[in-house]
Amino acid sequence: MMKIYDWPTGPYPARVRIALDEKNLGSRVQFVTVNLWKGEHKTADFLATRNYSGTIPVLELDDGTLIAECTAITAYLDALDGAPTLTGRKPREKGVIQMMSKRAELELMDAISVYFHHATPGLGPHVETYQNREWGLRQRDKALNGMRYFDSVLRTQPFVAGEAFSMADITVIGGMIFAGLVRLAVPADCETLQAWYARMGERPSVRKQLSMAAPATA
Amino acid sequence: MMKIYDWPTGPYPARVRIALDEKNLGSRVQFVTVNLWKGEHKTADFLATRNYSGTIPVLELDDGTLIAECTAITAYLDALDGAPTLTGRKPREKGVIQMMSKRAELELMDAISVYFHHATPGLGPHVETYQNREWGLRQRDKALNGMRYFDSVLRTQPFVAGEAFSMADITVIGGMIFAGLVRLAVPADCETLQAWYARMGERPSVRKQLSMAAPATA
Repeated sequence: MMKIYDWPTGPYPARVRIALDEKNLGSRVQFVTVNLWKGEHKTADFLATRNYSGTIPVLELDDGTLIAECTAITAYLDALDGAPTLTGRKPREKGVIQMMSKRAELELMDAISVYFHHATPGLGPHVETYQNREWGLRQRDKALNGMRYFDSVLRTQPFVAGEAFSMADITVIGGMIFAGLVRLAVPADCETLQAWYARMGERPSVRKQLSMAAPATA
Repeated sequence: MMKIYDWPTGPYPARVRIALDEKNLGSRVQFVTVNLWKGEHKTADFLATRNYSGTIPVLELDDGTLIAECTAITAYLDALDGAPTLTGRKPREKGVIQMMSKRAELELMDAISVYFHHATPGLGPHVETYQNREWGLRQRDKALNGMRYFDSVLRTQPFVAGEAFSMADITVIGGMIFAGLVRLAVPADCETLQAWYARMGERPSVRKQLSMAAPATA
């Protein structure tokens, strides 16, 4: 039985939970709760024994191997079996999916994360021991521009990386979940992005996560 | 003939050039120079037609498909043929390589990049239109700790992701090249990291890049 260290309503954990459900692998995983609001992902023990970078989710295999980072966990899960694929089959698909997923981190999800941890109270003063508000606000603006970018992408194709659902869609979904949690409003002109997000919300894997997500301040 | 938009001595381009040489695919690529020092990667045209994120390298396929991000380009190249593999074959290998490569970006290479662009003159005032020095200095310290982390990893295994050379080694090499360019000294206690780096420098693919690299201020 694989283990996943996560926090049930965390936006990064949501990415892996969606991937698990898309791959129908949920029954092979046991979730271990790491309480973000108590900073359990930043303790010396967690950093030393689970993930040096102090983030969740982290996948632990039966042999004790630890795999952190959503894209790495998704690559692992996707390699376990063939259908459906989340990371592509042909070289071009693989490259484009990886690029768009990374871009969704850089320009949207990770930017919102920095905004949350640096320009809002974040997880509270006992966890946010250093904040750089100016940097956080820059990242908020970057994320809003990122939404406009993905809106423009989705005007020309049905999914973030082209003609099929992939890890890249999941990463943008993670960003949109995070935006909702921190109450970062999607720009009014991003109608295509909103329509895509509504369509994504009809997928059972995504609907489940959306129903779990609660505002960060709850 | 594939095209790669890059700058010959850039540390991120070095990652893709090493991957190309490891895969013996160099003859299938034509390099197109994008002058970082003139900010050619930040022009409106480059952002609109090459890479929204304004970074190099970017791979362009014969059909016009653009693939940015070193990990995505490496995934593409690695899927073109089988030997040697840089991203792993079995699920566990794939996951661990992806994780360690991402960690090498987060904790080392990207941190040095932020330091360079925010807490040094970077590419000069016409390119560095916004700097956050405090954040840049934090990232420098993060990178130094990252070196200590990879030093500890390499004390228990010969390569960054385990028993074989992989994309994760290339990413750490990219970080070490960048550290050299910005004259960020490797902590004296990182002897294992230094020994590994010397060993990596014996690989023809890496040696070629090290001989091209010149200090950023040159």
